[in-house]
Amino acid sequence: MGLARLVLVNPKHFPDPVADARASGATDVLAEAQICTALDEALEGAVLVAALTSRRRDFAPPTFTLRDAMAELADRARRQEVALLFGAETSGLRNSELEKCHMRVEIPAAPVYPSLNLAAAVQVAVYELRMALLEGAARPATRGELAMHEEIEGFYQHLEQALTASGFLDPAHPKKLMPRLRQLFSRTRLERDEVNILRGILKYMKNS
Amino acid sequence: MGLARLVLVNPKHFPDPVADARASGATDVLAEAQICTALDEALEGAVLVAALTSRRRDFAPPTFTLRDAMAELADRARRQEVALLFGAETSGLRNSELEKCHMRVEIPAAPVYPSLNLAAAVQVAVYELRMALLEGAARPATRGELAMHEEIEGFYQHLEQALTASGFLDPAHPKKLMPRLRQLFSRTRLERDEVNILRGILKYMKNS
Repeated sequence: MGLARLVLVNPKHFPDPVADARASGATDVLAEAQICTALDEALEGAVLVAALTSRRRDFAPPTFTLRDAMAELADRARRQEVALLFGAETSGLRNSELEKCHMRVEIPAAPVYPSLNLAAAVQVAVYELRMALLEGAARPATRGELAMHEEIEGFYQHLEQALTASGFLDPAHPKKLMPRLRQLFSRTRLERDEVNILRGILKYMKNS
Repeated sequence: MGLARLVLVNPKHFPDPVADARASGATDVLAEAQICTALDEALEGAVLVAALTSRRRDFAPPTFTLRDAMAELADRARRQEVALLFGAETSGLRNSELEKCHMRVEIPAAPVYPSLNLAAAVQVAVYELRMALLEGAARPATRGELAMHEEIEGFYQHLEQALTASGFLDPAHPKKLMPRLRQLFSRTRLERDEVNILRGILKYMKNS
Protein backbone atom coordinates (compact mmCIF):
# COMPACT_ATOMS: atom_id res chain seq x y z
CA MET A 1 0.00 0.00 0.00
CA GLY A 2 3.00 2.29 -0.45
CA LEU A 3 4.14 2.52 3.17
CA ALA A 4 7.88 2.07 3.64
CA ARG A 5 8.66 2.33 7.33
CA LEU A 6 8.11 -0.63 9.67
CA VAL A 7 9.21 -0.48 13.31
CA LEU A 8 9.11 -3.64 15.45
CA VAL A 9 9.23 -3.52 19.23
CA ASN A 10 10.86 -6.65 20.71
CA PRO A 11 9.94 -9.04 17.89
CA LYS A 12 10.01 -12.75 18.79
CA HIS A 13 11.69 -13.82 15.52
CA PHE A 14 13.31 -11.36 13.17
CA PRO A 15 14.36 -11.68 10.44
CA ASP A 16 12.05 -14.61 9.79
CA PRO A 17 11.95 -16.75 6.61
CA VAL A 18 8.15 -17.15 6.96
CA ALA A 19 7.72 -13.37 6.86
CA ASP A 20 10.00 -13.16 3.82
CA ALA A 21 7.99 -15.86 2.02
CA ARG A 22 4.66 -14.15 2.74
CA ALA A 23 6.00 -10.84 1.44
CA SER A 24 5.92 -12.42 -2.06
CA GLY A 25 8.91 -10.46 -3.27
CA ALA A 26 8.10 -7.22 -1.47
CA THR A 27 10.85 -7.79 1.08
CA ASP A 28 12.24 -4.25 1.01
CA VAL A 29 10.03 -3.10 3.89
CA LEU A 30 11.17 -6.07 5.98
CA ALA A 31 14.82 -5.58 5.06
CA GLU A 32 14.68 -1.96 6.23
CA ALA A 33 12.58 -2.56 9.34
CA GLN A 34 13.83 -0.85 12.48
CA ILE A 35 14.03 -2.86 15.72
CA CYS A 36 13.34 -1.20 19.08
CA THR A 37 13.27 -2.38 22.66
CA ALA A 38 10.70 0.15 23.86
CA LEU A 39 7.54 1.68 22.41
CA ASP A 40 8.72 5.21 23.22
CA GLU A 41 11.73 4.64 20.98
CA ALA A 42 9.48 3.40 18.18
CA LEU A 43 7.24 6.45 18.40
CA GLU A 44 10.02 9.06 18.46
CA GLY A 45 9.27 11.82 16.02
CA ALA A 46 5.60 10.92 15.58
CA VAL A 47 3.10 13.69 16.22
CA LEU A 48 -0.07 11.65 15.85
CA VAL A 49 -0.42 8.00 16.84
CA ALA A 50 -3.45 5.87 15.99
CA ALA A 51 -3.80 2.59 17.87
CA LEU A 52 -5.83 -0.19 16.32
CA THR A 53 -7.70 -2.16 18.93
CA SER A 54 -11.25 -3.37 19.18
CA ARG A 55 -11.19 -3.57 22.99
CA ARG A 56 -12.68 -0.59 24.79
CA ARG A 57 -10.84 0.59 27.93
CA ASP A 58 -11.55 3.14 30.61
CA PHE A 59 -8.69 5.51 29.89
CA ALA A 60 -8.22 5.03 26.22
CA PRO A 61 -7.90 7.96 23.84
CA PRO A 62 -11.11 8.85 21.98
CA THR A 63 -12.54 6.28 19.59
CA PHE A 64 -12.63 6.82 15.82
CA THR A 65 -13.77 4.66 12.98
CA LEU A 66 -10.90 3.62 10.75
CA ARG A 67 -12.01 5.85 7.88
CA ASP A 68 -12.23 9.01 10.00
CA ALA A 69 -8.95 8.28 11.76
CA MET A 70 -7.05 7.69 8.53
CA ALA A 71 -8.42 10.93 7.05
CA GLU A 72 -6.89 12.87 9.95
CA LEU A 73 -3.67 10.86 9.84
CA ALA A 74 -3.28 11.38 6.09
CA ASP A 75 -3.88 15.10 6.43
CA ARG A 76 -1.20 15.41 9.12
CA ALA A 77 1.22 13.05 7.31
CA ARG A 78 1.68 15.65 4.60
CA ARG A 79 3.80 17.71 6.96
CA GLN A 80 4.83 15.63 9.98
CA GLU A 81 5.38 12.02 10.97
CA VAL A 82 2.42 9.95 12.04
CA ALA A 83 2.20 6.35 13.23
CA LEU A 84 -0.13 3.40 13.25
CA LEU A 85 0.27 1.17 16.30
CA PHE A 86 -0.73 -2.50 16.40
CA GLY A 87 -0.46 -4.97 19.28
CA ALA A 88 0.87 -8.51 19.10
CA GLU A 89 -1.34 -11.17 17.49
CA THR A 90 -2.61 -12.80 20.67
CA SER A 91 -1.96 -10.31 23.49
CA GLY A 92 -2.92 -7.05 21.76
CA LEU A 93 -2.06 -3.64 23.19
CA ARG A 94 -1.53 -2.97 26.91
CA ASN A 95 -3.38 -0.08 28.55
CA SER A 96 -0.05 1.65 29.20
CA GLU A 97 0.69 1.46 25.46
CA LEU A 98 -2.73 2.67 24.41
CA GLU A 99 -2.41 5.68 26.70
CA LYS A 100 0.49 6.95 24.59
CA CYS A 101 -1.77 7.27 21.55
CA HIS A 102 -4.13 9.97 20.32
CA MET A 103 -6.79 7.83 18.75
CA ARG A 104 -8.24 4.42 19.48
CA VAL A 105 -9.30 3.14 16.10
CA GLU A 106 -12.02 0.59 15.50
CA ILE A 107 -12.55 -1.34 12.30
CA PRO A 108 -16.33 -1.63 11.93
CA ALA A 109 -16.36 -5.44 11.92
CA ALA A 110 -19.41 -7.57 12.61
CA PRO A 111 -20.20 -7.32 16.34
CA VAL A 112 -19.98 -11.11 16.84
CA TYR A 113 -16.32 -11.19 15.69
CA PRO A 114 -14.99 -7.69 16.42
CA SER A 115 -11.32 -8.69 16.51
CA LEU A 116 -9.39 -9.25 13.28
CA ASN A 117 -6.18 -11.19 12.84
CA LEU A 118 -3.19 -8.87 13.01
CA ALA A 119 -2.29 -9.15 9.32
CA ALA A 120 -5.92 -8.47 8.35
CA ALA A 121 -6.10 -5.39 10.59
CA VAL A 122 -2.82 -4.04 9.21
CA GLN A 123 -3.99 -4.59 5.62
CA VAL A 124 -7.30 -2.79 6.10
CA ALA A 125 -5.69 0.08 8.00
CA VAL A 126 -2.97 0.79 5.46
CA TYR A 127 -5.50 0.47 2.64
CA GLU A 128 -7.66 3.18 4.25
CA LEU A 129 -4.61 5.33 4.87
CA ARG A 130 -3.60 5.02 1.22
CA MET A 131 -7.13 5.89 0.06
CA ALA A 132 -7.14 8.94 2.34
CA LEU A 133 -3.72 10.01 1.03
CA LEU A 134 -4.89 9.64 -2.58
CA GLU A 135 -8.13 11.51 -1.94
CA GLY A 136 -6.69 14.24 0.25
CA ALA A 137 -3.75 15.09 -2.00
CA ALA A 138 -5.31 18.41 -2.94
CA ARG A 139 -6.78 19.46 0.42
CA PRO A 140 -5.08 22.20 2.44
CA ALA A 141 -3.30 21.05 5.60
CA THR A 142 -4.74 22.24 8.89
CA ARG A 143 -3.30 24.04 11.91
CA GLY A 144 0.27 24.51 13.14
CA GLU A 145 3.05 22.06 13.99
CA LEU A 146 1.96 19.28 16.31
CA ALA A 147 4.30 18.22 19.11
CA MET A 148 6.29 15.02 18.67
CA HIS A 149 5.78 11.92 20.77
CA GLU A 150 8.93 12.47 22.84
CA GLU A 151 8.03 16.11 23.48
CA ILE A 152 4.64 15.05 24.76
CA GLU A 153 6.13 12.26 26.88
CA GLY A 154 8.59 14.79 28.28
CA PHE A 155 5.67 17.02 29.18
CA TYR A 156 3.83 14.16 30.92
CA GLN A 157 6.93 13.33 32.97
CA HIS A 158 7.31 16.97 33.86
CA LEU A 159 3.64 17.15 34.77
CA GLU A 160 3.81 14.03 36.94
CA GLN A 161 6.84 15.37 38.80
CA ALA A 162 5.19 18.73 39.34
CA LEU A 163 1.97 17.13 40.57
CA THR A 164 3.92 14.86 42.92
CA ALA A 165 6.01 17.77 44.24
CA SER A 166 2.86 19.79 44.81
CA GLY A 167 1.34 16.92 46.83
CA PHE A 168 -1.64 16.64 44.47
CA LEU A 169 -0.45 13.25 43.20
CA ASP A 170 0.40 10.65 45.84
CA PRO A 171 2.86 8.18 44.23
CA ALA A 172 1.73 5.50 46.70
CA HIS A 173 -1.89 5.94 45.57
CA PRO A 174 -1.74 7.46 42.09
CA LYS A 175 -5.27 6.27 41.26
CA LYS A 176 -5.99 7.05 37.61
CA LEU A 177 -4.80 10.64 37.59
CA MET A 178 -2.10 10.39 34.91
CA PRO A 179 -4.19 8.21 32.56
CA ARG A 180 -7.03 10.73 32.89
CA LEU A 181 -4.74 13.63 32.09
CA ARG A 182 -3.21 11.77 29.15
CA GLN A 183 -6.68 11.11 27.84
CA LEU A 184 -7.56 14.78 28.11
CA PHE A 185 -4.44 16.04 26.34
CA SER A 186 -4.40 13.36 23.67
CA ARG A 187 -7.84 14.59 22.52
CA THR A 188 -6.50 18.07 21.91
CA ARG A 189 -3.61 17.19 19.53
CA LEU A 190 -1.09 19.36 21.38
CA GLU A 191 0.93 21.71 19.24
CA ARG A 192 4.61 22.30 19.88
CA ASP A 193 4.08 25.82 21.10
CA GLU A 194 1.38 24.62 23.46
CA VAL A 195 3.67 22.01 25.01
CA ASN A 196 6.24 24.74 25.59
CA ILE A 197 3.61 26.93 27.23
CA LEU A 198 2.44 24.06 29.48
CA ARG A 199 5.98 23.22 30.52
CA GLY A 200 6.57 26.90 31.24
CA ILE A 201 3.58 26.78 33.57
CA LEU A 202 4.93 23.65 35.30
CA LYS A 203 8.30 25.31 35.84
CA TYR A 204 6.52 28.29 37.30
CA MET A 205 4.52 25.99 39.66
CA LYS A 206 7.72 24.42 40.94
CA ASN A 207 9.43 27.73 41.58
CA SER A 208 6.52 29.35 43.31
CA MET B 1 -16.98 -8.41 8.19
CA GLY B 2 -20.46 -9.88 8.46
CA LEU B 3 -20.50 -11.98 5.28
CA ALA B 4 -21.83 -15.50 5.75
CA ARG B 5 -21.65 -17.31 2.43
CA LEU B 6 -18.40 -18.79 1.15
CA VAL B 7 -18.31 -20.89 -2.02
CA LEU B 8 -15.13 -22.77 -2.95
CA VAL B 9 -14.52 -24.10 -6.46
CA ASN B 10 -12.34 -27.23 -6.44
CA PRO B 11 -10.41 -26.46 -3.23
CA LYS B 12 -7.11 -28.30 -2.81
CA HIS B 13 -7.67 -29.09 0.87
CA PHE B 14 -11.01 -28.70 2.54
CA PRO B 15 -11.80 -28.81 5.39
CA ASP B 16 -8.32 -27.81 6.50
CA PRO B 17 -7.08 -27.51 10.11
CA VAL B 18 -4.85 -24.55 9.16
CA ALA B 19 -7.88 -22.62 7.91
CA ASP B 20 -9.78 -23.48 11.11
CA ALA B 21 -6.89 -22.24 13.26
CA ARG B 22 -6.60 -18.96 11.36
CA ALA B 23 -10.33 -18.35 11.71
CA SER B 24 -9.65 -17.74 15.43
CA GLY B 25 -13.01 -19.11 16.53
CA ALA B 26 -15.00 -17.70 13.61
CA THR B 27 -15.32 -21.14 12.01
CA ASP B 28 -19.04 -20.87 11.18
CA VAL B 29 -18.38 -19.48 7.69
CA LEU B 30 -15.96 -22.35 6.98
CA ALA B 31 -18.34 -24.95 8.41
CA GLU B 32 -21.12 -23.79 6.10
CA ALA B 33 -18.96 -23.27 3.01
CA GLN B 34 -20.38 -24.70 -0.19
CA ILE B 35 -18.11 -26.76 -2.46
CA CYS B 36 -18.53 -26.64 -6.24
CA THR B 37 -16.74 -28.22 -9.16
CA ALA B 38 -17.43 -25.40 -11.64
CA LEU B 39 -17.52 -21.64 -11.46
CA ASP B 40 -20.92 -21.49 -13.14
CA GLU B 41 -22.33 -23.54 -10.27
CA ALA B 42 -20.76 -21.19 -7.74
CA LEU B 43 -22.26 -18.13 -9.42
CA GLU B 44 -25.80 -19.47 -9.77
CA GLY B 45 -28.29 -16.90 -8.59
CA ALA B 46 -25.85 -14.00 -8.64
CA VAL B 47 -26.88 -10.95 -10.68
CA LEU B 48 -23.70 -8.95 -10.29
CA VAL B 49 -20.22 -10.45 -10.06
CA ALA B 50 -17.12 -8.43 -9.17
CA ALA B 51 -13.77 -10.09 -9.88
CA LEU B 52 -10.73 -8.95 -7.94
CA THR B 53 -7.63 -9.00 -10.08
CA SER B 54 -4.84 -6.52 -10.63
CA ARG B 55 -3.93 -7.93 -14.03
CA ARG B 56 -5.37 -6.07 -17.00
CA ARG B 57 -6.62 -8.20 -19.90
CA ASP B 58 -7.92 -7.49 -23.35
CA PHE B 59 -11.44 -8.75 -22.91
CA ALA B 60 -12.02 -8.09 -19.27
CA PRO B 61 -15.16 -6.41 -18.00
CA PRO B 62 -14.76 -2.69 -17.24
CA THR B 63 -12.36 -1.71 -14.46
CA PHE B 64 -13.54 -0.16 -11.19
CA THR B 65 -11.73 0.90 -8.07
CA LEU B 66 -12.68 -1.24 -5.11
CA ARG B 67 -14.64 1.57 -3.43
CA ASP B 68 -16.80 2.32 -6.47
CA ALA B 69 -17.41 -1.36 -7.18
CA MET B 70 -18.46 -2.14 -3.63
CA ALA B 71 -20.86 0.82 -3.63
CA GLU B 72 -22.66 -0.67 -6.63
CA LEU B 73 -22.51 -4.19 -5.21
CA ALA B 74 -23.91 -3.07 -1.84
CA ASP B 75 -26.72 -1.18 -3.53
CA ARG B 76 -27.71 -4.23 -5.56
CA ALA B 77 -27.25 -6.64 -2.62
CA ARG B 78 -30.24 -5.10 -0.90
CA ARG B 79 -32.54 -6.86 -3.34
CA GLN B 80 -30.64 -9.57 -5.22
CA GLU B 81 -27.63 -11.82 -4.82
CA VAL B 82 -24.21 -10.49 -5.71
CA ALA B 83 -20.81 -12.15 -5.65
CA LEU B 84 -17.16 -11.34 -5.15
CA LEU B 85 -14.82 -13.60 -7.12
CA PHE B 86 -11.20 -14.25 -6.21
CA GLY B 87 -8.64 -16.43 -7.98
CA ALA B 88 -6.29 -18.93 -6.36
CA GLU B 89 -3.28 -17.56 -4.45
CA THR B 90 -0.63 -18.20 -7.10
CA SER B 91 -2.51 -18.69 -10.37
CA GLY B 92 -5.17 -15.98 -10.07
CA LEU B 93 -8.20 -15.84 -12.36
CA ARG B 94 -8.28 -17.25 -15.87
CA ASN B 95 -9.52 -15.07 -18.73
CA SER B 96 -12.46 -17.42 -19.23
CA GLU B 97 -13.43 -16.89 -15.58
CA LEU B 98 -13.02 -13.14 -15.71
CA GLU B 99 -15.27 -12.97 -18.75
CA LYS B 100 -18.17 -14.22 -16.65
CA CYS B 101 -17.98 -11.16 -14.41
CA HIS B 102 -19.40 -7.65 -14.67
CA MET B 103 -16.61 -5.73 -13.03
CA ARG B 104 -12.86 -6.08 -12.87
CA VAL B 105 -11.96 -4.58 -9.54
CA GLU B 106 -8.59 -3.07 -8.70
CA ILE B 107 -7.35 -2.33 -5.22
CA PRO B 108 -5.36 0.91 -5.55
CA ALA B 109 -2.11 -0.59 -4.27
CA ALA B 110 1.32 0.93 -4.82
CA PRO B 111 2.25 0.46 -8.50
CA VAL B 112 5.48 -1.42 -7.65
CA TYR B 113 3.55 -4.19 -5.83
CA PRO B 114 0.08 -4.16 -7.38
CA SER B 115 -0.81 -7.73 -6.40
CA LEU B 116 -1.92 -8.52 -2.86
CA ASN B 117 -1.87 -11.88 -1.14
CA LEU B 118 -5.27 -13.57 -1.47
CA ALA B 119 -6.21 -13.22 2.21
CA ALA B 120 -5.24 -9.53 2.14
CA ALA B 121 -7.33 -8.88 -0.97
CA VAL B 122 -10.34 -10.68 0.50
CA GLN B 123 -10.04 -8.71 3.76
CA VAL B 124 -9.88 -5.33 2.05
CA ALA B 125 -12.71 -6.18 -0.33
CA VAL B 126 -15.15 -7.38 2.32
CA TYR B 127 -14.23 -4.40 4.50
CA GLU B 128 -15.17 -2.01 1.68
CA LEU B 129 -18.35 -3.96 1.01
CA ARG B 130 -19.31 -3.74 4.68
CA MET B 131 -18.59 0.01 4.75
CA ALA B 132 -20.72 0.50 1.64
CA LEU B 133 -23.55 -1.55 3.18
CA LEU B 134 -23.42 0.50 6.39
CA GLU B 135 -23.30 3.81 4.50
CA GLY B 136 -25.86 2.94 1.87
CA ALA B 137 -28.48 1.54 4.25
CA ALA B 138 -30.74 4.53 3.66
CA ARG B 139 -30.24 5.05 -0.07
CA PRO B 140 -32.97 4.06 -2.50
CA ALA B 141 -32.22 1.03 -4.66
CA THR B 142 -31.87 1.63 -8.38
CA ARG B 143 -33.53 0.10 -11.47
CA GLY B 144 -35.36 -3.15 -12.01
CA GLU B 145 -34.45 -6.79 -11.41
CA LEU B 146 -31.09 -7.75 -12.85
CA ALA B 147 -30.74 -11.10 -14.61
CA MET B 148 -29.06 -13.93 -12.73
CA HIS B 149 -25.75 -15.44 -13.73
CA GLU B 150 -27.30 -18.60 -15.19
CA GLU B 151 -29.85 -16.58 -17.17
CA ILE B 152 -27.05 -14.52 -18.69
CA GLU B 153 -24.94 -17.62 -19.40
CA GLY B 154 -28.01 -19.17 -21.04
CA PHE B 155 -28.32 -16.08 -23.20
CA TYR B 156 -24.64 -16.25 -24.22
CA GLN B 157 -25.00 -19.91 -25.21
CA HIS B 158 -28.12 -19.07 -27.17
CA LEU B 159 -26.31 -16.15 -28.80
CA GLU B 160 -23.29 -18.27 -29.72
CA GLN B 161 -25.51 -20.96 -31.29
CA ALA B 162 -27.45 -18.36 -33.22
CA LEU B 163 -24.29 -16.67 -34.46
CA THR B 164 -22.83 -20.03 -35.49
CA ALA B 165 -26.04 -21.09 -37.25
CA SER B 166 -26.11 -17.79 -39.11
CA GLY B 167 -22.53 -18.29 -40.28
CA PHE B 168 -21.32 -15.09 -38.61
CA LEU B 169 -19.29 -17.04 -36.08
CA ASP B 170 -16.93 -19.70 -37.45
CA PRO B 171 -16.38 -22.26 -34.65
CA ALA B 172 -13.04 -23.18 -36.26
CA HIS B 173 -11.90 -19.55 -36.08
CA PRO B 174 -13.98 -17.92 -33.36
CA LYS B 175 -11.44 -15.11 -32.90
CA LYS B 176 -12.49 -12.96 -29.95
CA LEU B 177 -16.13 -12.52 -30.91
CA MET B 178 -17.76 -14.02 -27.82
CA PRO B 179 -15.38 -12.35 -25.34
CA ARG B 180 -16.08 -9.00 -27.05
CA LEU B 181 -19.83 -9.55 -26.82
CA ARG B 182 -19.57 -10.60 -23.19
CA GLN B 183 -17.60 -7.46 -22.47
CA LEU B 184 -20.26 -5.35 -24.14
CA PHE B 185 -23.20 -6.90 -22.30
CA SER B 186 -21.49 -7.11 -18.93
CA ARG B 187 -21.12 -3.33 -18.95
CA THR B 188 -24.86 -2.87 -19.30
CA ARG B 189 -26.00 -4.89 -16.24
CA LEU B 190 -28.66 -6.80 -18.16
CA GLU B 191 -32.08 -6.87 -16.58
CA ARG B 192 -34.20 -9.99 -16.60
CA ASP B 193 -36.72 -8.53 -19.02
CA GLU B 194 -33.91 -7.48 -21.33
CA VAL B 195 -32.47 -11.00 -21.42
CA ASN B 196 -35.91 -12.29 -22.36
CA ILE B 197 -36.16 -9.72 -25.11
CA LEU B 198 -32.70 -10.60 -26.46
CA ARG B 199 -33.47 -14.32 -26.43
CA GLY B 200 -36.72 -13.59 -28.20
CA ILE B 201 -34.72 -11.85 -30.91
CA LEU B 202 -32.35 -14.83 -31.18
CA LYS B 203 -35.27 -17.22 -31.55
CA TYR B 204 -36.64 -15.00 -34.27
CA MET B 205 -33.23 -15.01 -36.07
CA LYS B 206 -33.17 -18.81 -36.07
CA ASN B 207 -36.66 -19.15 -37.48
CA SER B 208 -36.24 -16.57 -40.20
